[in-house]
Amino acid sequence: MYIVGIAGGSGSGKTTFASKIIEKVTGTRVMHLHQDSYYLEKLPKDDFINKKPNYDHPSAFDWKLLRKHFAALKKNKRIEAPVYDFVSSSRLAQTVKIGPGKVCIFDGIYALYDPLIRDMLDLKIFLHVDADIRFIRRLHRDVRERGRNLDGIIDQYYDMVRPMHRQYLEPTSIYADLVVGEDTDRAAEVVASHISAHLR
Amino acid sequence: MYIVGIAGGSGSGKTTFASKIIEKVTGTRVMHLHQDSYYLEKLPKDDFINKKPNYDHPSAFDWKLLRKHFAALKKNKRIEAPVYDFVSSSRLAQTVKIGPGKVCIFDGIYALYDPLIRDMLDLKIFLHVDADIRFIRRLHRDVRERGRNLDGIIDQYYDMVRPMHRQYLEPTSIYADLVVGEDTDRAAEVVASHISAHLR
Repeated sequence: MYIVGIAGGSGSGKTTFASKIIEKVTGTRVMHLHQDSYYLEKLPKDDFINKKPNYDHPSAFDWKLLRKHFAALKKNKRIEAPVYDFVSSSRLAQTVKIGPGKVCIFDGIYALYDPLIRDMLDLKIFLHVDADIRFIRRLHRDVRERGRNLDGIIDQYYDMVRPMHRQYLEPTSIYADLVVGEDTDRAAEVVASHISAHLR
Repeated sequence: MYIVGIAGGSGSGKTTFASKIIEKVTGTRVMHLHQDSYYLEKLPKDDFINKKPNYDHPSAFDWKLLRKHFAALKKNKRIEAPVYDFVSSSRLAQTVKIGPGKVCIFDGIYALYDPLIRDMLDLKIFLHVDADIRFIRRLHRDVRERGRNLDGIIDQYYDMVRPMHRQYLEPTSIYADLVVGEDTDRAAEVVASHISAHLR
């Protein structure tokens, strides 16, 4: 299985970019795995800030399960990806069956973070979008979709999103084969035709 | 004609990257046009620094001829590219016939600088390599291939290469569809398979 990793900060447009690629690939149905599905049910207390769980820290993810699932996908086996519920901060009883298949896109803020996962990625992409634009997109999403208030969003941004981005996320851009900016249409075409060529 | 523009600072590896792509493209012979061929014979006096011509300023290039040649290539006509001699700082009597053809790679420090040229590029790539590595590569090349002395190289770097890079060159990275770093093998594969797909 050919796996493409797409990393980038919160609000960098990872999911949109992945969807554009998936739409343009010809010859197979592309699977899509979100790192968000692999949030731990209990986040490590050590990383709490102001008594709040830190969803932007690498330790918030279930790396053990992610590595296991990646290894299974690489061996062309089916996995049962967890479904994380952001409202209750827990995994739901159901799972999503992914694979076997030929191509999978894995997106997430730490898609390029773990060395073992990185070794299993056939193409590594980092979305580089200016911090103000990422913040504004996040603000929109949190206000509209999650009904959160402005002060809470800004506190979380200063306390966790921003420092974690600078400390852990941004440095992973050095592992990328390609860095893509705000305009992703042409890049999606290029990546999709590479995947399609690989399939032939 | 499908034209790929590759920009990046001096020492970023533009020509090596272009060669890797050319080697991997299947289905046609890819042409290669260097912006260096289009240096003006007389560089504008206004941009001289310490009485020395500024080869790193955008005004050092013959944009009129470049635009004319790009327009011709786009209409699938043959052009006669100039040959610039770095020893005598002048154009030689001979020219290089380029085109007609299906694909051309255009590389140069200001490959993404001119708006009219940019509009004629089908894919825009920027090579982002750290400044220290670029300087060291340039140093090697200038000492080995051009027999220049260390002080002269460093003076030129401080006076012209570095400030021009920051003022005029680096800002053109925002126009890139793809940014590529030091490791260019995978990126060359991706771009080559996109070009090959375009040809089919």
